[in-house]
Amino acid sequence: MALNNELEGILVVSIEQAVAAPYCGLLLADAGARVIKIERSGGDFARSYDTGIDGQSAIFAWLNRGKESICLDLKTVKDFNLLINILRKADVLLSNLAPGAIERLGLIGNDLRKENSRLVTCSISGYGDSKLAKNKKAYDFLVQAESGLCAVTGTEKFPSRVGISVADLSTGLTAFSAILRSLLQRERTGVGIDLKISMFDVMADWMNMPLLAHRYMGGAPARMGLQHSFIAPYGAFKSKNGDQILISIQSNREFNIFCKGILEDITLSENPKFADNPSRYKNHIILDKIVSGVFETWETEPLIKKLDSLKIANARMNTVEELSRHPFLKTSTAIIGANEINVAALPVHSEGLSSKKVPNLNESESQIRDEFSKKNKRLREK
Amino acid sequence: MALNNELEGILVVSIEQAVAAPYCGLLLADAGARVIKIERSGGDFARSYDTGIDGQSAIFAWLNRGKESICLDLKTVKDFNLLINILRKADVLLSNLAPGAIERLGLIGNDLRKENSRLVTCSISGYGDSKLAKNKKAYDFLVQAESGLCAVTGTEKFPSRVGISVADLSTGLTAFSAILRSLLQRERTGVGIDLKISMFDVMADWMNMPLLAHRYMGGAPARMGLQHSFIAPYGAFKSKNGDQILISIQSNREFNIFCKGILEDITLSENPKFADNPSRYKNHIILDKIVSGVFETWETEPLIKKLDSLKIANARMNTVEELSRHPFLKTSTAIIGANEINVAALPVHSEGLSSKKVPNLNESESQIRDEFSKKNKRLREK
Repeated sequence: MALNNELEGILVVSIEQAVAAPYCGLLLADAGARVIKIERSGGDFARSYDTGIDGQSAIFAWLNRGKESICLDLKTVKDFNLLINILRKADVLLSNLAPGAIERLGLIGNDLRKENSRLVTCSISGYGDSKLAKNKKAYDFLVQAESGLCAVTGTEKFPSRVGISVADLSTGLTAFSAILRSLLQRERTGVGIDLKISMFDVMADWMNMPLLAHRYMGGAPARMGLQHSFIAPYGAFKSKNGDQILISIQSNREFNIFCKGILEDITLSENPKFADNPSRYKNHIILDKIVSGVFETWETEPLIKKLDSLKIANARMNTVEELSRHPFLKTSTAIIGANEINVAALPVHSEGLSSKKVPNLNESESQIRDEFSKKNKRLREK
Repeated sequence: MALNNELEGILVVSIEQAVAAPYCGLLLADAGARVIKIERSGGDFARSYDTGIDGQSAIFAWLNRGKESICLDLKTVKDFNLLINILRKADVLLSNLAPGAIERLGLIGNDLRKENSRLVTCSISGYGDSKLAKNKKAYDFLVQAESGLCAVTGTEKFPSRVGISVADLSTGLTAFSAILRSLLQRERTGVGIDLKISMFDVMADWMNMPLLAHRYMGGAPARMGLQHSFIAPYGAFKSKNGDQILISIQSNREFNIFCKGILEDITLSENPKFADNPSRYKNHIILDKIVSGVFETWETEPLIKKLDSLKIANARMNTVEELSRHPFLKTSTAIIGANEINVAALPVHSEGLSSKKVPNLNESESQIRDEFSKKNKRLREK
């Protein structure tokens, strides 16, 4: 048995844009939930991130397959009431609007739960809702910089952005896990709760390694390009062919094998300078020079074979093109208009057959209005 | 109401080491589960990652607070039988041993479920269990390189590692979400399932942006240091003081405001070169020069105030030291020996009071042996 539409019957309303909440919505849809994406009249601006698929965005397609789309102007009574009607039947309200916007719309979790006590509300923000933080706009790269992630990434001289939207994606996945936790809790308590997830908090937790080094190990590690900052030897070394081959030695046992089988110098593993990882890292400049000197004498293929036979962890520095044709890459499809595109698959295997269709803007309007537009009291009138 | 020990009563056995499974175990413990960490006789090698806290590892403390520790030699009948006894009562078996090790120990999910049908088994690997992949050793940085993440991170000339263990942490969080999904499914089906999570698959999904650019937009973006690869203007620009100020313009509406309020040239937003994001990105070199020229004329503080007042998203490039004293940083404690240390808190708020204590190696041995060592048939004998 495997996962198979375990969220079937769960109705998610997502007032979402860009990446973080849409990625969370994608994960909910893949798990079998029905996800209604609420868009402003111009649509989620991620629809114009690129024009790769007949003028439509491939990035948008990746993040939004399997959802329904409806455009609502939540400042009008009619559309607001429709939303409230949907929320009376919903399990989850997810959102990542600009700071304060969800409250200004009157969508307060505790108020909504007066009408539907089972509703889980989850809002994603950049920096949380403290007084200083709550009005600060946030996008992925800005949070990378603000959290110090850029300061530990890059070369010795130049800090760098991480080349993917890591703050958005990690936050979307965190929100997904928090929603699942709330649904599990609801199985016992019968009631939904309010979740607030901030991108900064997610990145700060993930920054614990350099943060703890700063606090307890005499300083955060310097940026080192393709070297590692706590473990040695760990990094890229050039073979005779000029290929970048990465290795990682994470235990004394592995280091002994590496000294014997590759460096061909067993005195190294007996040298107190390299006796354990803290010592090896402390003396990594000397150690890296020794490794470089040996790797330069090996051709790539025999070196990798030898490393594999010794069970020394190794990898190649692949380009995106090499990823695209990597034998380990699993793909899935997204259907956008008349086009079917290939995306890297979600990493958790599910036997549930979630839709691969990317919704056109407002595609499900008439169906959703029909389904949910019974006359009802407005929650806004309180 | 908030999350509050929603996994209370859930027993997790984690045969874990390093970062990915330990981070997943930390998240399970924080959600209220009882997590028994099984260590080899020498202990999880992450115990020697650093010696920051009176000779003990701060990184280990961050990843293992709230767990119990027992050393087992699973090649002996006695310890293997103890593990089987624990698994008869457990809800989750989590593991991230070296390739093939868990199977060689005889810990096959479907066999274990013959004795305890409710058991969820989750194994984390580097590259999955295809024939080519299953013997390939993997650590965080190696997967970063193999998946192409390093190729899109860094400066124009030099690719770079991401300065945190992003492949490990994202995989640990993905495994956590998959376990939660399995527990939700079990509420309906009554039975546990097998989960296999690969670090490469997680990173490949997160690489969809550059991957789709490669496939559908004429090529993966070049590495750009502190600039963004799809959106313009988006990146770091120096103020008159030399500070790096990041801005992000994600919509035409925002670009219009930026042209009027900061660049003081409304003709720019009417220029077809900058009409929408794809155009702005295509012409970002010209656009970045214009922005740089204007930012150089502003002092930092008034510039940030002006950007804030126009609601143009902005951030500062912070160092780890600046993160450590950032007003938005939330911390939690970990207690290791006689020391109490401060770590950046987990991002999902919970009212459950999970233990902050980091287990000493084998600390809970006698208690766990007492609790679970009733005589029982060996599963191994089949």
